[in-house]
Amino acid sequence: MTVNPLVTCGRCPACAAGRSHLCPHRQILSMPPRPGAFAEYVCVPEGNLVTVPDGLSIERAALAEPLAVSYHAVNQGARLLGRPLSGARCVVLGGGAIGFGAALVLAMQGAGEIRLAEPNAERRAVVARGVPRVRTYAPGEPGEPGPDSADLILDAVGSRSTRAAASRLARPGAVIVHIGLLPGEEGLDVRKITLQEIVVSGSYCYTMQEFREVVDALADGRLGGLDWLEQRALSEGARAFIDIDAQRAAPKIVLRPAHRP
Amino acid sequence: MTVNPLVTCGRCPACAAGRSHLCPHRQILSMPPRPGAFAEYVCVPEGNLVTVPDGLSIERAALAEPLAVSYHAVNQGARLLGRPLSGARCVVLGGGAIGFGAALVLAMQGAGEIRLAEPNAERRAVVARGVPRVRTYAPGEPGEPGPDSADLILDAVGSRSTRAAASRLARPGAVIVHIGLLPGEEGLDVRKITLQEIVVSGSYCYTMQEFREVVDALADGRLGGLDWLEQRALSEGARAFIDIDAQRAAPKIVLRPAHRP
Repeated sequence: MTVNPLVTCGRCPACAAGRSHLCPHRQILSMPPRPGAFAEYVCVPEGNLVTVPDGLSIERAALAEPLAVSYHAVNQGARLLGRPLSGARCVVLGGGAIGFGAALVLAMQGAGEIRLAEPNAERRAVVARGVPRVRTYAPGEPGEPGPDSADLILDAVGSRSTRAAASRLARPGAVIVHIGLLPGEEGLDVRKITLQEIVVSGSYCYTMQEFREVVDALADGRLGGLDWLEQRALSEGARAFIDIDAQRAAPKIVLRPAHRP
Repeated sequence: MTVNPLVTCGRCPACAAGRSHLCPHRQILSMPPRPGAFAEYVCVPEGNLVTVPDGLSIERAALAEPLAVSYHAVNQGARLLGRPLSGARCVVLGGGAIGFGAALVLAMQGAGEIRLAEPNAERRAVVARGVPRVRTYAPGEPGEPGPDSADLILDAVGSRSTRAAASRLARPGAVIVHIGLLPGEEGLDVRKITLQEIVVSGSYCYTMQEFREVVDALADGRLGGLDWLEQRALSEGARAFIDIDAQRAAPKIVLRPAHRP
């Protein structure tokens, strides 16, 4: 089994409309009021369990949650864009777990062009190795896409500077999906958004259907070999967070409880 | 004839896709490089002429442009919302020409609930008289809709305070259409937009198809009796602008050249 950590009420209008991620009663396993998921045993609602298909390792199945976040963001962008991704020039801002995943999902969905901005050279190299057809660049350096050049921009950072970059990159009628949650509100070019009819949408979590679709995509290889995944012992978890913070880690680290063979 | 003042190239990808209002070569009759439309004779491209249907007066046909701006903004909002307006709680911010028109178009499209915010009591009275089913309110006073209560918000002001109000009113998954062009960039609640997946879209002008549809709607009475329209002589035009600025004018004033009977 793998676990969807997003717990929703199942009865509100958002849940009834299949948009359970907008449920006003939503909770996330590991965050209050359901803290503590770095444990050998965790109690979860039965409805949040998803059977892992044959042939998909439990460690790879654990990637369903972060990749579902990226998958939902790409789906939200494609829906708002209103035309096929195959003709769209896409830019992902940020090469952390969610940005990496967004580029991977764009490749899976057949996006026309995939660029990814990331200041850290090691992260850029990991993205370039792990994602088909992606071209990475360092913001502010040669190779950066020009203004008004992107149809779909996914901001997986959510800072003042990435919002400003997204506004600059956006072509008339473009879609910006804002996923990152750094503090601060500034950076969006409201005048350009108005005059050029740019669409800005938040993106948060995913629906249960999307979570299941990502488990299927992981199992049938559509998201690649997943060999960028790093595994460590649960007892080394605190160290893993230090390494992530210092950008010395893989896009995602899976922690394995000690009793597992 | 009535005239669509938006001049586009007709050959770029935006024009080819029917989104001529996003044409990079767009020009507007009356603004540089095509200044001066307050005149008895103006030279316009033939493709911008639309025949006025029998029974529609030329003065009423002149309302096609501002109402097409409102019509396009409502259509953009409905498209992004992705579900029928009949079930949507809609709020228009601002009771000037475009906000008035947006409320009128929402009524024509059968929107579930229509609220309009306007600080000026006289403008509120004009809106209440002219728009079916609308309920007006003064921002900050009793009767204002609560937070998280609106599905579609049309900001026909475009100020820091209206962007803040739109963010506050938006329910999870709501759509904010930003039409106004006052100076300034602040007010949007980016964190709420992200966590509650709110969609913010600019809206500017309209397509030729939408312009034609508004002419038809004016002619067949779907936009009402249009008796809120005020007519003045072209020679009194400067005074009309002073009155509009002082909020002493009707939602729209049509200036008539002297030679017209």
